[in-house]
Amino acid sequence: MREVAVAGIGMGKFGELWGKSLRDIFVEAALEAIDDAGVDHIDSMYVGCMSSGLFTGQEHLAALLADYLGITPAPAVRVESACCSGALAVKLGFIEVASGLSDIVLAGGVEKMTDVSTGEATDVLSCAADRDYESFHGITFPGLYAAMARAHMDRYGTTREQLAQVAVKNHFNGAKNPLAQFRREITIDDVLNSPMVADPLRMFDCSPISDGGAAVVLCPLDMAKKLEKKHPLVQITGIGHATDTIALHSRKELTELAATVHAGRKAYEMARRSENDIDAVEVHDCFTISEICVIEALGFAEEGKGGELTEKGETAIGGSIPINTSGGLKAKGHPVGATGVAQICDIVKQLRGDAGERQVEGAKVGLAQNMGGSGGSAVVTILEAR
Amino acid sequence: MREVAVAGIGMGKFGELWGKSLRDIFVEAALEAIDDAGVDHIDSMYVGCMSSGLFTGQEHLAALLADYLGITPAPAVRVESACCSGALAVKLGFIEVASGLSDIVLAGGVEKMTDVSTGEATDVLSCAADRDYESFHGITFPGLYAAMARAHMDRYGTTREQLAQVAVKNHFNGAKNPLAQFRREITIDDVLNSPMVADPLRMFDCSPISDGGAAVVLCPLDMAKKLEKKHPLVQITGIGHATDTIALHSRKELTELAATVHAGRKAYEMARRSENDIDAVEVHDCFTISEICVIEALGFAEEGKGGELTEKGETAIGGSIPINTSGGLKAKGHPVGATGVAQICDIVKQLRGDAGERQVEGAKVGLAQNMGGSGGSAVVTILEAR
Repeated sequence: MREVAVAGIGMGKFGELWGKSLRDIFVEAALEAIDDAGVDHIDSMYVGCMSSGLFTGQEHLAALLADYLGITPAPAVRVESACCSGALAVKLGFIEVASGLSDIVLAGGVEKMTDVSTGEATDVLSCAADRDYESFHGITFPGLYAAMARAHMDRYGTTREQLAQVAVKNHFNGAKNPLAQFRREITIDDVLNSPMVADPLRMFDCSPISDGGAAVVLCPLDMAKKLEKKHPLVQITGIGHATDTIALHSRKELTELAATVHAGRKAYEMARRSENDIDAVEVHDCFTISEICVIEALGFAEEGKGGELTEKGETAIGGSIPINTSGGLKAKGHPVGATGVAQICDIVKQLRGDAGERQVEGAKVGLAQNMGGSGGSAVVTILEAR
Repeated sequence: MREVAVAGIGMGKFGELWGKSLRDIFVEAALEAIDDAGVDHIDSMYVGCMSSGLFTGQEHLAALLADYLGITPAPAVRVESACCSGALAVKLGFIEVASGLSDIVLAGGVEKMTDVSTGEATDVLSCAADRDYESFHGITFPGLYAAMARAHMDRYGTTREQLAQVAVKNHFNGAKNPLAQFRREITIDDVLNSPMVADPLRMFDCSPISDGGAAVVLCPLDMAKKLEKKHPLVQITGIGHATDTIALHSRKELTELAATVHAGRKAYEMARRSENDIDAVEVHDCFTISEICVIEALGFAEEGKGGELTEKGETAIGGSIPINTSGGLKAKGHPVGATGVAQICDIVKQLRGDAGERQVEGAKVGLAQNMGGSGGSAVVTILEAR
């Protein structure tokens, strides 16, 4: 297997992009990544997207985007694993380059969610749960994560304020990110006084509905060294991917994200790294409780101590393990298919030293964790400056 | 890259499967493939499915199916490329085994299309065309393929009867296939007198709406040799995959399937084979005209001569190049995500000598061609008995 570099990244502003179509959003991000990499062609493409069918009425998405990007007859594949579709596109691109089958692979993600109403979007998102045994009985994702939050509070004493602190930190970081959907700092009181969505989760505990795209260009590390470089090299050194029961009620523990645990172990093993080596992290904070469960699953916090670690400020920029310096899904936005790719773009910015006000000093090793549904699938990617 | 074998195949009857859910259909095919291969675990899974979201309200499909198949925490990826989603699942499984990343990979495909009305299904299928520039203006797939048929008739003199002969041959073969949706022979007159769908295409020129699943187990050829074998070995020796403009109106010629041409060339090159080496073929006859255009694109017929070759009986079992011995999409059925995998299962049966009444004597090299939309994506797979 060959060593694989992220040679280029591209990502536009996330938000309610009324003036842009699904194809516009993707192609803009892809062209930016191609330009950033300095390559003159693409051998193969992977696109992560959860539900272009239900959001916009368009399937056969990878062929459409290959056409609009102007790369036909290059092969193009859409991959779907709900909200971790993006990281899977990068994983498959990584395999294709590592195997020697292709040299230059574009891996991108996109979602256009605002062509439907908020209620319809909530229903589309619930297609990531078990429709027959969860969604059809009325539960939505805020409800599923609320059950996880309540279980975490009961079992470990996690407080309402600790949950709120996740949102406060991520809005603080997002306010400094020019590409974030929400660039406004909030307070603990703002969270606690925001409208109730699913007890104990309130509006500011939830990531928004967003449009957005992101893309990376992958190539062999040796080739990346020869490309005209505006920036330091970044290598993907580990990728782990795992599944868990899709329905929350089938799990032994509501508070344990087993797919993230497995994916994390595989990624650490492949990269020959542990949680202690990681300098900057992006995790899948679709709700505030998810960030707390994920940092425990990845070993950054002890079991049950994710809330406490957050409250102490250790996950803030300047803390012992900065989490979601981009603003996370909460403030940067969560166009579901794009999220996993955007996380990797943000880690690359940190490892290049290009994160501006949000820079983690001396960041050399970064980790991105992306997950689908209530954690039924997860991908963990480790990246390192070279 | 390691050599890759198809160690097991599984495929239930296609049809209107009212009593089975999406997950039942997939799991039955997958278990049959696992049993056929004689393996005791699965390292990784790929699932091809066009639109579980629009047909059944379920996304996050691979995680759901990994859960119901009982293989969590193994990684599972859904791939989508409209009607060639299935062959893509096999392609990605092939890469994963060939690269050395995994040993035993299950690649399957599934679609449950009859949970919606026929009108709704037609609309869902039209999501495989360019929705903004084709479908929203009223054209459906019968209309797109009718335009291709009319152009082929005008340009090459292909006759209405030659189109009908494709359906007659495929129904003749399907009548002998116990897993086919339609097991009834038809005549040229049946086709010519069937209701008009989109001039010149009539009902019997169109493949049906179907439910169904299919799966294969892939592993290194060396490992397959050691598994307890009930049947001869089959190796995947070539895979080609390409894209074309998604909209029919963007192409230079309505009658040329450029993605199939490119995919075919790549597959022949990888397998070091030409069209003259192929003994049995499954092609994507979503409409009768598609079979004619595809056999020309793959070199089995000269440009414009696909109808004539069919009329002469050369594509029947016993002819010089038997096409769609399974009954094809036309008679076997076309559960879109499953089709590409089912084609490969049928070729494996031919290469094992297990095709019963439909057996091509002495078949050693087979080819499956699967395509999406009006040909915007295509995968060609070459398999050989070992």
